[in-house]
Amino acid sequence: MNTNVSIITIGDELLIGQVIDTNSAWMAQELNKWGIRVIRRVAVGDNWNEIWNALDEESKKAGIILITGGLGPTADDITKPLLCEYFGGKMVMNAEALENVTCLFETVFKRPLTERNIKQAEVPNNCTLIPNKRGTAPGMWFEKNGCIYVSLPGVPHEMKGMMENTVIPMVAERFQFPKIEHRTLVCYGIGEAMLADLTADFESGLPPEIKLAYLPHDGMVRLRLSSYDVKNHNNLERTFQSLAKIVGTYLIATADQTMEEILASLLISKSQTVATAESCTGGYIAHLLSKNPGSSAYYAGSMVTYSYEAKEQLLGVNQSTLIEYGAVSEQVVKEMASGLLNRMKSDYAIAVSGILGPDGGLPDKPVGTVWMAAGDTKEIITKKIHLRFNREKNTQVAAMHAMNLLRAYILKH
Amino acid sequence: MNTNVSIITIGDELLIGQVIDTNSAWMAQELNKWGIRVIRRVAVGDNWNEIWNALDEESKKAGIILITGGLGPTADDITKPLLCEYFGGKMVMNAEALENVTCLFETVFKRPLTERNIKQAEVPNNCTLIPNKRGTAPGMWFEKNGCIYVSLPGVPHEMKGMMENTVIPMVAERFQFPKIEHRTLVCYGIGEAMLADLTADFESGLPPEIKLAYLPHDGMVRLRLSSYDVKNHNNLERTFQSLAKIVGTYLIATADQTMEEILASLLISKSQTVATAESCTGGYIAHLLSKNPGSSAYYAGSMVTYSYEAKEQLLGVNQSTLIEYGAVSEQVVKEMASGLLNRMKSDYAIAVSGILGPDGGLPDKPVGTVWMAAGDTKEIITKKIHLRFNREKNTQVAAMHAMNLLRAYILKH
Repeated sequence: MNTNVSIITIGDELLIGQVIDTNSAWMAQELNKWGIRVIRRVAVGDNWNEIWNALDEESKKAGIILITGGLGPTADDITKPLLCEYFGGKMVMNAEALENVTCLFETVFKRPLTERNIKQAEVPNNCTLIPNKRGTAPGMWFEKNGCIYVSLPGVPHEMKGMMENTVIPMVAERFQFPKIEHRTLVCYGIGEAMLADLTADFESGLPPEIKLAYLPHDGMVRLRLSSYDVKNHNNLERTFQSLAKIVGTYLIATADQTMEEILASLLISKSQTVATAESCTGGYIAHLLSKNPGSSAYYAGSMVTYSYEAKEQLLGVNQSTLIEYGAVSEQVVKEMASGLLNRMKSDYAIAVSGILGPDGGLPDKPVGTVWMAAGDTKEIITKKIHLRFNREKNTQVAAMHAMNLLRAYILKH
Repeated sequence: MNTNVSIITIGDELLIGQVIDTNSAWMAQELNKWGIRVIRRVAVGDNWNEIWNALDEESKKAGIILITGGLGPTADDITKPLLCEYFGGKMVMNAEALENVTCLFETVFKRPLTERNIKQAEVPNNCTLIPNKRGTAPGMWFEKNGCIYVSLPGVPHEMKGMMENTVIPMVAERFQFPKIEHRTLVCYGIGEAMLADLTADFESGLPPEIKLAYLPHDGMVRLRLSSYDVKNHNNLERTFQSLAKIVGTYLIATADQTMEEILASLLISKSQTVATAESCTGGYIAHLLSKNPGSSAYYAGSMVTYSYEAKEQLLGVNQSTLIEYGAVSEQVVKEMASGLLNRMKSDYAIAVSGILGPDGGLPDKPVGTVWMAAGDTKEIITKKIHLRFNREKNTQVAAMHAMNLLRAYILKH
């Protein structure tokens, strides 16, 4: 039997770009952990014929079709009646789903149950119910001509709970999946093409079951080795170690980690903390450093100081320094970092000040100029970069460089 | 001719979930502005047969196929040779593309040009070149059997420049597109099902060319009216106004705005500023409020105070208040907000303190408990919410509620 997965996402909002599909990426990641391979992802609108055709077509390519979206209580949600007709069932009230809806309204939403909510507990009589503990729309599992079809809500939080609690265990129990393994390392300070020249001989010598991929992102390049149907783990591990040796000093992590995770691991290993003083990045570094559970172990806090006044009052930057050199200068980021260390009592500080655009450039400081500082009470190092992207991407890349500056500082001391 | 668009995205990273596809949403949005309709999106891996089949299949459904990804300089990038073979061309060096690559390396990257980089300037001899001023991989425009195929790099920044500068103008010039118009309003404080009951009569009375969609997100519901092939703008406008009347007091915006945009507009209209004191949200509200250009007009800055010490030293919260009531309490968020107003000199303050999980809950303050305050030097109002999501979603919803608390405060005063 074909155990490849195709994911169908349903909703006009996906086709007019009002919503970014994060569900598919999450589903693919989770399925991969179990050795389940996604071969296609298809997005279609809230349109009867297009959904129907997608079901027909994807079932020719994949043995497991995961469908998200279109299960809400409103008229634009047509997935449930469509699946009912597609599989030739008829709609019946499901006692388990009804109990769940009733309980959610009584204990969580604390609102009266309407006719429309009750109707959400109806499902086709020829499906297996997939309970949804986090919402009112139940999931459905159908089988037809050796193919499995699973329909889940598009609300990420609900879909995730149902995948973890029911769908993946049910699929994994049914099949023996071939092993897929990925190992990723992260390089910094080298472009994709130069990296490919470095690894050219290595890549041409790879065994057929191992594939190398290059994923450039925000100034870093991730190299991913994927092993399909491996007989032993050692081969991938050996190959990965050779690759790590080849990239040498460009290597900054031997796992698929973001820069904030790399910096966090380093700080945790030394039981030290960092605080940030942000001007142009506006709290983005703070957000990155605090978003993971347990971040209070290494992250002390942040001051986001947009104005001259805030830099003076909150961080103790000298007015004369601001006037003489301007807010985007080596002198100011140094004073921001040392002022922060005085006030926050963290082991390390990161400070950033720049012009991220689209406006605000000066003759000697064009849009994209960013000064950053990192260090501790003993020494503060600085760096200037020139970014050439839009505001959003400039913010991301500036944050990445600033965190890397501290990473390099810690490793040298 | 069929002028519907299908988007094919290429890359194993999309199928193993290592990368979230934001390109398709952006492309769809831009195309929509010109009345160009996307009917399907398909993601396939770096696999010759699957890409080939996707080209065959999508050309049966759409007249314009936009392809992103697989144009890098490395061995896993097979889109260019595949398209060359698919359209029966042969690879030739393109002088314009070569000049662009050479110039990029000389003036921007400041690195020597390698053989691999030069090879990126080769394109099939039967395509029209789409210049890429932001990177080394040129785009390609093919035509076959009345269908247009456009291949662009997957790097978002490069793809966007090429779409705006070349692809959309070329497509728009070729065809007369039917008009598509969307109008979106945003509701707060009401669930999707109850909203659907409110709008049931309205929806059943809609003319056939106007469609209503419900998009719940982070405690808000966006209602989108889409008019396909409208003869006059007035009909959509009238329908939109009736809908706005029906949702009444739940309405918080008559455009497709995020909560931070709604709050920003309100502050700009009053020439006033806000500052934030964040504990559990860790700078996320600061990031939202500062990420748009011109944010310094309404956003003063933020203090991210994770620890007891930071709350005392930076915001002047009383130690006795922290000890008596705990960091997650009405008293502490009130003192955070008033301390912030003393130090930041902004017109308004928002303060948040909570337990976002997965750990850290207390018997009387379970995970998901969040206290928030908003106000000015005259009055500070507070609110407690209980969230039931994961850490990431709890952060987003808490930020949304906190910004809404200030929005409501400003409107009442």
